[in-house]
Amino acid sequence: MPRYPEPIERLVRELKQLPGVGEKTAERFAFHLMRRGPDACHRLAETLLAAIRGIRACSGCRCASESDPCAICRDPSRRSDELCVVADHQGLAAVERTGLYLGRYWVLGGLLSPIDGLTPETLGIGALDERLSGGGISEMVLAINPTIEGEATINYLSRRYGGAVPRITRLARGLPRGADLEFADEVTLSDALSGRKEVSR
Amino acid sequence: MPRYPEPIERLVRELKQLPGVGEKTAERFAFHLMRRGPDACHRLAETLLAAIRGIRACSGCRCASESDPCAICRDPSRRSDELCVVADHQGLAAVERTGLYLGRYWVLGGLLSPIDGLTPETLGIGALDERLSGGGISEMVLAINPTIEGEATINYLSRRYGGAVPRITRLARGLPRGADLEFADEVTLSDALSGRKEVSR
Repeated sequence: MPRYPEPIERLVRELKQLPGVGEKTAERFAFHLMRRGPDACHRLAETLLAAIRGIRACSGCRCASESDPCAICRDPSRRSDELCVVADHQGLAAVERTGLYLGRYWVLGGLLSPIDGLTPETLGIGALDERLSGGGISEMVLAINPTIEGEATINYLSRRYGGAVPRITRLARGLPRGADLEFADEVTLSDALSGRKEVSR
Repeated sequence: MPRYPEPIERLVRELKQLPGVGEKTAERFAFHLMRRGPDACHRLAETLLAAIRGIRACSGCRCASESDPCAICRDPSRRSDELCVVADHQGLAAVERTGLYLGRYWVLGGLLSPIDGLTPETLGIGALDERLSGGGISEMVLAINPTIEGEATINYLSRRYGGAVPRITRLARGLPRGADLEFADEVTLSDALSGRKEVSR
């Protein structure tokens, strides 16, 4: 005998596919949706289908976009000699929010993690090769998380494109604003120390 | 300018309605679904709609069921003089998994929490009054979490039905199996101490 009625068990199995969602959370989601009733469920289903219908990968930068090319790739005021490489669309949105970057983007769609089957091939590195083959990129900004997978990806990209792109940069590492020296981990503090800058007077 | 394409922003807003899901998690869900592609999205939407179509509240116990009355309410071998009151269907499933309870159920659909607008009226206490009005219940088992809201609900139910039901019980409180005295919180240990039982020899 299944623990819940079969339609709910099926829904739980589907919801468990979401990242970071286990059995208990999926059950909570499923019963919450059942309680909210048909209107809420239809709205969620329709919104989901509208999104998957309406969103495509921009052929210029592979970001999620309603149009192809996307608004950034179409914008003539953006510098086309700067290419910012991000892991995903959320990373792109984070850089955009700073308002400081005015070049183009490339969305990798993940980070290297051989253990999870994420290799240069699955990330479609050939498409980035092609994007760069035309030349004209003077700086490649690697706006990638300083995590283990991120460092591996930064390492890989800088070695792969070191010869082709004049300048490859990565985001500065150091103390986040509002941090307390006493509570900073050693790696962050080491980064902050070796990256120290002269104070302008 | 919105941070993400509008169809994704709408999907994020819908996903944020799920319990315990904030902005960042909803974004992660949305992009995950977009990456998984049309097949996975259609499957999730269809499963959701099939569940909301196929599941109703059993008129006997208000559990989520494909049939009305549900399998438990229909089962002639289950004692009909015992009524186990649970907060939700997950609670019912947990009690069923023990295999020790052979009576009927009543699903409250929540716990008293006036601050969240959950009153006896929103929990439909009138329907439980009606369920009990026929008499014939010799024990009401309150299988409800020993949390603040749970204690308030246990308190309320035991006072409301104290006159009508001969025996109202609640789940034992004490040390969970495998617990370590040293790490038990004081309230649990106090419960365990005041509920101590003679060792059979």
